[in-house]
Amino acid sequence: MSRPYHVAVIGLGAMGMGAARSCLRAGLATYGVDLSAKAREQLQSAGATAVVDDARPLAETLDAVLLLVVNAAQVRQILFGDSGLAAHLKPGTGVMVSSTIAADDAAALARELTALGLLMLDAPVSGGAVKAESGEMTVMAAGCDEAFERLQPVLDAVAGKVYRVGSEPGQGSTVKIIHQLLAGVHIAVAAEAMALASRADISLDLMYDVVTHAAGNSWMFENRMARVLTGDYQARSAVDIFVKDLNLVADTARDLHFPLPLASTALNMFLAASNAGYGKEDDSAVIKIFDGITLPNSEGTA
Amino acid sequence: MSRPYHVAVIGLGAMGMGAARSCLRAGLATYGVDLSAKAREQLQSAGATAVVDDARPLAETLDAVLLLVVNAAQVRQILFGDSGLAAHLKPGTGVMVSSTIAADDAAALARELTALGLLMLDAPVSGGAVKAESGEMTVMAAGCDEAFERLQPVLDAVAGKVYRVGSEPGQGSTVKIIHQLLAGVHIAVAAEAMALASRADISLDLMYDVVTHAAGNSWMFENRMARVLTGDYQARSAVDIFVKDLNLVADTARDLHFPLPLASTALNMFLAASNAGYGKEDDSAVIKIFDGITLPNSEGTA
Repeated sequence: MSRPYHVAVIGLGAMGMGAARSCLRAGLATYGVDLSAKAREQLQSAGATAVVDDARPLAETLDAVLLLVVNAAQVRQILFGDSGLAAHLKPGTGVMVSSTIAADDAAALARELTALGLLMLDAPVSGGAVKAESGEMTVMAAGCDEAFERLQPVLDAVAGKVYRVGSEPGQGSTVKIIHQLLAGVHIAVAAEAMALASRADISLDLMYDVVTHAAGNSWMFENRMARVLTGDYQARSAVDIFVKDLNLVADTARDLHFPLPLASTALNMFLAASNAGYGKEDDSAVIKIFDGITLPNSEGTA
Repeated sequence: MSRPYHVAVIGLGAMGMGAARSCLRAGLATYGVDLSAKAREQLQSAGATAVVDDARPLAETLDAVLLLVVNAAQVRQILFGDSGLAAHLKPGTGVMVSSTIAADDAAALARELTALGLLMLDAPVSGGAVKAESGEMTVMAAGCDEAFERLQPVLDAVAGKVYRVGSEPGQGSTVKIIHQLLAGVHIAVAAEAMALASRADISLDLMYDVVTHAAGNSWMFENRMARVLTGDYQARSAVDIFVKDLNLVADTARDLHFPLPLASTALNMFLAASNAGYGKEDDSAVIKIFDGITLPNSEGTA
C-alpha cells in the first residue's frame, strides 16, 4: 500500500474546519493547526492524525499545506515569521493559500515560496461554511501545472468546482476580489433599497416578495434581506469582513489605476456601519447606517 | 350574452403591444391607441376591435383604459392635455396607469381622476416584452377596492402575478421605483466588476462563469453581462431608460429626505454613458464609461 498523502490545514475557523474534515473524509492523513485548543480538540475527535499549534515539527512529513487563516499578514507570519514554516518544508511540497488576500501579496508569497523550491497555488475559495463542510467549496486557483498536480488530492477533497484561472499566482486572488466587489455592493444596495422602502412605508415583506420574484433580485438580496425581515443580525459573515474585502478591492483598483465608483461607495457604507459599532454583527447590519426608519426586530414586530 | 368588456390600450410599444394582444387573447373587446401607424396596423391584424390615434371618440364605450406610455408627462398629456381623454370617460371607468412614474405623479393623477368619478389603479409592471406578450407581467398595484374590481378583467388578461401593494395610489409606483433602484445598481456594478476584470487581464468568460455560479450573482449580472461577452449592445432596454428610472429613484429619495449613496452613483454612471453617446444602446453599454480596457466586440474577438 502506498504511503498516504499528508496535509496540514492551518486555520481551523468555519472554512478551515470544514476543509480539514473534508480531507479526513477523503482519506488523507490530515493534521490540524490552530492556536485555539477548542478547535484542535474538535478536529482531533473527528479523526485527525494529529493536531498542533505549530506545524514546524511535522514539516518534513507533509505533502501539502492548506492555509485558511484570516488575512495576508497571518499567512506571511505562518510561512515566513520568526517561527516560519516555509524554510522547514521539503522542496516540492504544495502550499495552497486559500485566504482572501491581495493579488500582490499572493504574487509575492509565490516568489518567496518558489525560491525555496515549494509549489504555491493561489487558491481562494467561496461557498461558506456549509460548502466547506461538505467538501464542495468553489476554488479559484492560479499557479503552475506542478502546483496543481501536487495539490490535486487536496482539491479533490475540498472542492466541488475548481476554476483554473491562470498560471500566475495573483490571478486567483483577483477573481475572488472581483467576486467580493459584487457581493459587497449587492449587500449594500439591498440594504439601501430596503431602507428606502421602510422610509416610504412600504411593507418590507411585500418588497422582499416582489424583488425576489423579479429582475431586481440578487443572491445576496435574497439571502441577507431575509435576516433583516426577522431582525436577526447574529453574524454568519460580519460587517468587518466586508470592510476587509472591499479594502482589498480598493487596493486592487489602485494598483491597476482603475476607478470603482460603486465599490468605493459600498466600502464607505460598511466602514460607517463598523464605525457605528456594528462591525461584529452580520453584514446585513449595514442597513443600520440609515437613520429615520424603523426596522423589524428579532421579536418579529416593527 | 352579456356585453363584452371594452378596454383601450394606449401606447403600443414593446410592453403595450404585448398587453393589448393578451387582452385580445382573453376575449376582451380591445382598442389600440398609438401615434404610430405601423403599431396600429400590427394590432389591427391581431384582431383589435379598432385602432385609433385618438381615443376620445370611443371614450363612452370603454370600461377601462390601460396606459403604457413612456413617462408621466405623456400620461398627463393623454388624460388631461388639450385633447384630454379623462373628461370624456364615463364615471366608473377604470384607468390603469402602468408606465413607470413618480409616486407623486401617480398620487396627483389619482386625485384628478377621482374628482371626475374615475377609478385609477397605480399599477406599474415588470417582466419585459416577453412576459407582456404572454400575459404574465408582474403588476405592482395600489388603489381602492373599486379600482381593483373594475380592472380585474384587464389584470386577469395581462398579469401573471398581481402584488396588491396598498390602497393609496403612489405606493405601486414606489415599489416599482425601488425595484428599479436595485436593477439599475446591479447593471452598473456588473459593468464595474467586468471592467475591472478586463483591466486585470482576467478572462471575461471565466469571470462570468465564476460569478454566475457563486454568491456574487444577480439576475441583471447574468442577463446583461452575457451581452458584454458577445459585444452585442443592440438595445433591449436602453441606457436612457435607466437615466430616466434612476432619476425617478432620486426624486423619490429627495421627497422622502433620504440618502441613497449607491443609487446616486449609479445614476451618474448611466448619465456619463448617455453623455458619451451611448444613450440609445443597450443598458449594458454603461460598461463603456470605463476607459483603458478592451472589451469583446460583436465579431467575438477582444
